[in-house]
This record gives sequence, C-alpha cells and structure tokens, in this order.
Amino acid sequence: MKVGIIGVGTVGASVANILRDNKDIIKARVGFEITPVIGVVNNLNKDRDVSIELTDDVNKVLDDDSIDVVVELMGGIEKPYEVVKKALAKGKAVVTANKALLAYHRYELEELAGDIPFEYEAAVAGGIPIINALREGLSANHILSIRGIMNGTCNYMLTKMINEGVDYDTILKESQELGYAEADPTFDVGGFDAAHKLLILASIAYDVDAKPEDILIEGIQNIDSPDIDFANEFNYSIKLLTIAKKKGKQIELRVHPVFIPKTEMIAKVDGVMNGVSVIGDRVGETMYYGPGAGGDATASAVIANIIDIARRGKGSPMLGFEFDHTENLQIMPKEEIETKYYLRLRVEDKAGVLAKIAKILGDKNISIEKMIQKPLNTTCANLLLATHMSVEKDIVDALQQIEDVGVVTAKPVMIRIED
Amino acid sequence: MKVGIIGVGTVGASVANILRDNKDIIKARVGFEITPVIGVVNNLNKDRDVSIELTDDVNKVLDDDSIDVVVELMGGIEKPYEVVKKALAKGKAVVTANKALLAYHRYELEELAGDIPFEYEAAVAGGIPIINALREGLSANHILSIRGIMNGTCNYMLTKMINEGVDYDTILKESQELGYAEADPTFDVGGFDAAHKLLILASIAYDVDAKPEDILIEGIQNIDSPDIDFANEFNYSIKLLTIAKKKGKQIELRVHPVFIPKTEMIAKVDGVMNGVSVIGDRVGETMYYGPGAGGDATASAVIANIIDIARRGKGSPMLGFEFDHTENLQIMPKEEIETKYYLRLRVEDKAGVLAKIAKILGDKNISIEKMIQKPLNTTCANLLLATHMSVEKDIVDALQQIEDVGVVTAKPVMIRIED
Repeated sequence: MKVGIIGVGTVGASVANILRDNKDIIKARVGFEITPVIGVVNNLNKDRDVSIELTDDVNKVLDDDSIDVVVELMGGIEKPYEVVKKALAKGKAVVTANKALLAYHRYELEELAGDIPFEYEAAVAGGIPIINALREGLSANHILSIRGIMNGTCNYMLTKMINEGVDYDTILKESQELGYAEADPTFDVGGFDAAHKLLILASIAYDVDAKPEDILIEGIQNIDSPDIDFANEFNYSIKLLTIAKKKGKQIELRVHPVFIPKTEMIAKVDGVMNGVSVIGDRVGETMYYGPGAGGDATASAVIANIIDIARRGKGSPMLGFEFDHTENLQIMPKEEIETKYYLRLRVEDKAGVLAKIAKILGDKNISIEKMIQKPLNTTCANLLLATHMSVEKDIVDALQQIEDVGVVTAKPVMIRIED
Repeated sequence: MKVGIIGVGTVGASVANILRDNKDIIKARVGFEITPVIGVVNNLNKDRDVSIELTDDVNKVLDDDSIDVVVELMGGIEKPYEVVKKALAKGKAVVTANKALLAYHRYELEELAGDIPFEYEAAVAGGIPIINALREGLSANHILSIRGIMNGTCNYMLTKMINEGVDYDTILKESQELGYAEADPTFDVGGFDAAHKLLILASIAYDVDAKPEDILIEGIQNIDSPDIDFANEFNYSIKLLTIAKKKGKQIELRVHPVFIPKTEMIAKVDGVMNGVSVIGDRVGETMYYGPGAGGDATASAVIANIIDIARRGKGSPMLGFEFDHTENLQIMPKEEIETKYYLRLRVEDKAGVLAKIAKILGDKNISIEKMIQKPLNTTCANLLLATHMSVEKDIVDALQQIEDVGVVTAKPVMIRIED
C-alpha cells in the first residue's frame, strides 16, 4: 500500500520515518508493506529529516493512481478542504490530523467520502486512541458525558500555577519560551483549540454538527492568585475542561476552566499531558491518558488509521456513532446550562455590601455552598463564593446586577465548578 | 444477528439486558439488529433477571445454525474449552471473558478459529478497551512495556492500607464482607488473577505463549505496616503491578507488589478501579483507566466485541499483534530480572549486625540507595533498605545468606521498586 503525505512538517516527517523505522512490525501486523512514497511541501529548499521523495506539486499525489492513502497535514482550513475533496473524489482514502478542518467541514467530507475511509484519530488528543475507544470499545453504551483535558499548553500553565504558585503572565512567557505556546497564544489559552477537539468527539458520540460559534468557549486568561488559593483551600484543581453531557434530548457542549476535586481521575492529568474521561450508561467511567501533541505521538495515531485502512480494505469504512441519527439530539442553549459556580467579587470592605450581594443572588435563586472573604487592603476585600447548582443565565444576570449596583470595585470573575 | 449466551450469571444477564435495553443505538451503530436469543444455565429453577429463553442444554446453542455468535461466560477451564472448540468448529464466532481459559488455551483456540472471529476484550481489565487499544490504537509502535493494575480486590485493599493505615487482615475481612474478595482469596491476593490478564496482554503485544507457571507471581500477603510507613515516608504508593517489559530480545513478565512513586499516573489508580499503562516506542506513555469488574462493565466489553464482529463480518477477524512472529521474543528467566528492591530485615539491635548485612550485600554488588532503621522494642529493630538496580538472583541469594548467618529474627521481606 502506498501513502502520499501532504505537508511534511514535524508530524509529516514522523509519519514517514515511523513507516520506515517500524516497517517490519507494521508489515507483520498488516500482512503487507505500507510505504510512504512522496511528500508535498511548500518549500523544497528547506532541509528536512525524511527519506522520501519531495515535491511542491500536490497533483503528483492526487493524480498518482498508485497512491492508496493520502495523509493531509497541511494546516489551515480552505486549502486542505480542497485537497481532501479532490483526494476523496479520486477514490483515495484520507487520513488527517487537522482539527480545524474537521470542526468546520467534517459532516460534508464524511458524506462525500461515503465508502472511502476518511479518518482522523490524530486530530483529537494526539497519541491517545480516543476516537477508536468511542467508536469501538464503548459501542455498547449510550455516552452520558465526555470530559477532556485536550490542550497541553493550558494544562501545563494551570499545573504550574496551582502546584507552584507561578502567576499567569510569568507562566505564559515561560510556555512561549519552551515552545508550548505561540507568540499569539489566544488559540490555546482562549479555549478554541480544545473546542475544535470537543466538537469532533461530540459529533462521534452524539451526532451533533455544532460549529465553534455555537458553543460556550472561555479561556484561562482571567485566572488569578485568589482563585488558586481558593482551589487549594477546598482541595480543587483548576483545569481547562471540554465538556459534552447528555441531558435528556439535549447536549451540553462547553469549554472553560473549572474547579474540579483533586480526587477525580481527570483532575490528576498534569503538565502537558492530555486526558479524556468518558461515562457510558453501562460501563461507567473510563479514562484515556497520554501525550496530546508532538510529532511522533501524533504520527502514531495517523499510522494507526493507515493500518486500520490497510487491514480492512478501502470498501469498509469504520462505522461509527455518527450514523446514529435515531436520537436527533439538540445542543443546549448556553444560557440554560446548569452547574455550580465560583464567584470572585472585589468588594469595598464596609457594612451593607454583603447584604446587597446576598439579596441579588437570593432573588435569582442562587444559593451559596461555601464562602471566604479575604482582605486585600484596608478598604477592599475579595469575596469568594461557591454556589450550589445554578442556571447560567441567572448567574450572568446576577453578576450584571452586582456590577450595576456598584458594590464591586472590579469586574466579577466567574469560574464553573465540576463536581 | 443472533447471539447465544452460555453461562447466564451476573455478566451473562447484563449482556442479554444491555442488548435489549440499548437495542436501538446498537442497531444504529451496526446497521442491523443484534438479538440475544437463548441462554444456557446449569440450574433452570434459579430466578434470573433476564428476558431471553433459557435452557440447560448447551447443544441448543451449538446445533442452532441461526446463531451467529456464541458468548462463553461459563467459568472454569476444561468445560468452556470443549464448548468453544465445538462452537468454532461449527463456524460460530466466539466472544469470551474467560481469562483462565485464555491463559492456558489461547494460542490453540486462535489457530483453530482461523478466519472465524474469536474475541475476548472483557477478559482483561473488564470495561476498559485495552485490547482494542493495543491492537489498533497503538499499532504503529513497538511496545516497550505494559504495566497494569488489573486486580480490583488487591487495589482496593492496598489503597485502604496506604491511605487509611488499615492492616492487611482487617481489610481482607472487610473486602470479603463487601463481596470484593472470595472466601478463599488466594486467586486474587496471590496475584494469579492478575497474571492471567498479563499473559493475555503480553501475548498480544509480544507473541509470547507463556503459562502462569513460567512467570514470577507474588501476592500482597506479606505487606505489613512498616512497609506502608516506608512508602509514605518516600512518597511511594504500593500497588500489585503486572509488568511486561521488552529488554532486547527478551520479555520480562512478572506480577508482584511494587513501591511506585505517587507521581506516576498508574500509581494514581485507586480503590477497585483498574488501569493499564502502555509505553510505545513512538507514542510514549498512554494509560487506560476504568472498572475492571462488575456485570454491566464487563458486558460492555463483551458487546463491543459482538458489535465489531457484526460490523466486520465473520470472514474478517481482527488482525492483531499476535501474528507478528518476526521477532521471536523469549521470556526472561525470573532470576535475571533487574530492578530496584526494598528489603525489610528484622534485626537484633546490637553492634556488628549492620556490618554483616552490608558485607553480604556488597559482595553481591547490591548497593543501597536509602535506609531507615526503626526500633521495634529494646532488643529488635526493622532495618528498611532500598537498593539501586540489582539482579533478582543476587537479591535472593543475599537474603538467603542474611538468614543463614543469623542476623535476622524473622524471615526477610522483599518488595520490588518500580521507578
């Protein structure tokens, strides 16, 4: 079987090199050889550590009838979208690690693919075979929830903040120096990268075709030292969590930082590592842990897809949950989400303030589970509250009212609690 | 597709009930209905919570040409061995959760099965799809090691011992009362159950056909409070770990309690839960976590196999690592295993004792990394040692010599260290 690789950066080079280095064991597992024959790059003059033929002409892959599988690792959305469409139209199996492409065009490309394999294990949580687990290992279950730590940059930063007390700006700078965060880190720290991955998993588990614009996405930028102290005080960790939960005929989809009890297995996923916890109605909780990024780890997932295609043949795509249109589930509107909330209110340290806040919360049926007040200076204090289960809309309205009545001296901060 | 269930205990009843309760979603995922039609039991008079026809005649399943898949959940070895052989001979796909059967007859049954699916996801780590991950998700990798916590009884007991200081006898009794441990707990606490599971995973990853008799198996029965104290002092957890490690052309296979740093992800698997950490040469470490037992969790894995068989058809078995005969790996003899060791020596508290022990260890090239001496009473003390990397044979010999020279007042205890 012959493979063409479009985009030979870190991951593409790893795909070519692993197919070469682990050739014998892969042949033993498949029954025949899988050979990377050509790679497409933008710049032919750049030095690359690969031993395959390189070209800057994508048609050398698309027009070559001997190439069975196209690996798309170009990055971006519109260009790979055109390339994948052409490859599928030529009857070539496609493997991609491009989560942005999938977040926007997956349903359309799946339909276009029909019986031709179109696979993307590497697009979610890097080397962790989570799509395989959802489609096959858990196939007897209704999926009740999927909770993931799927952005290594954020998890590295939050782990350092909570374990070592490093502040946000310092750890962001360090992450940029280490190459974990981009010069413009918004895509990672703003939650958008994690959201793309969530949407792929949710579409497999629930057959919901949501776009990033449709769901609640918040980043980790507002987390500050009082929040870290609160977490440590109540034995919480802070994680950027992607959440998909089934509630009746609705699916909650959201990405945001959470306080989560340190005793939960997913809360123990630290540093740059990824983890995905899935609750099935019959199996209960299973969790999948591993590297979410890196050339070799990502390539491991790309090649797992190629091997599956080789084993099963072109005519037998991996049926998945996505063909379950029986339930017709809808995305829950953001404002209806119900969870527990942590509120950080910077208040003037004088009589009557707490009464005003308590009244606003009480009027919205928001009840308080925990509260700490910490003086900031002689006139100001941080009031830290954790609520019982409340509705998103009520919390947002209450925070607006609290701002409006002028009892806070800074914009209130809200972090959801997952327990 | 029609399914016959041989053995309708807790797991068998769950298989029948999930196929009924989740019928619609399973049909959507497969494309057609999967129907449990008959169950075979020993005692027809016992009340069972299942809605399928029951019989006490196994031939009603074996001779029924309309039954495509036989689920074997009988327990034992010889009887199910005969039944599985007959089912395969009739061309029926077989799914089993019977780890003892597999530990002894897997290679033979796989050969007999040929193109007929013969699957056993549920036999290892209950509801965790670890076999699927090894065969498919990690198929691009040479597997460097597999380390598992695969006996919930032992893990529950050890978690209670280390987190709450409960002693072995008390927690064993509690586990028996909770139904986690049998009246004769040897199969669990002696490490034999975990060993069966290890052998199945090792055969998939390394194509080694080892029997339980061939490998190092030690249980948790000798762990005592000084060991717990030592673990807490050096931030270790104590786990019954199954270990398969590739060392050149040899495979280390062993089951025994270990001290393992609490920071390792596998060390964070607590209570009755199971976890399996796999290191691949390219992906690095991935870990799989979930319930290792229970009717519904185990049935979830059984049905995942049935669904895979339904999706792929009878003629396309799940090719696995087991067909990799290229490497011809051998099992490392027990005495050649190299690791770090913890030694608990009960010594007389008098001059010259430490010198004798140090000389014996030194002569065997065993060097000490950590040491604590804790007085037990006015005449005796526990000498607790952790060694650097040492060879099993040297440790065993040294402990024998230490006993022989009469410096210890109780049989030395040795626990391996995994870090």
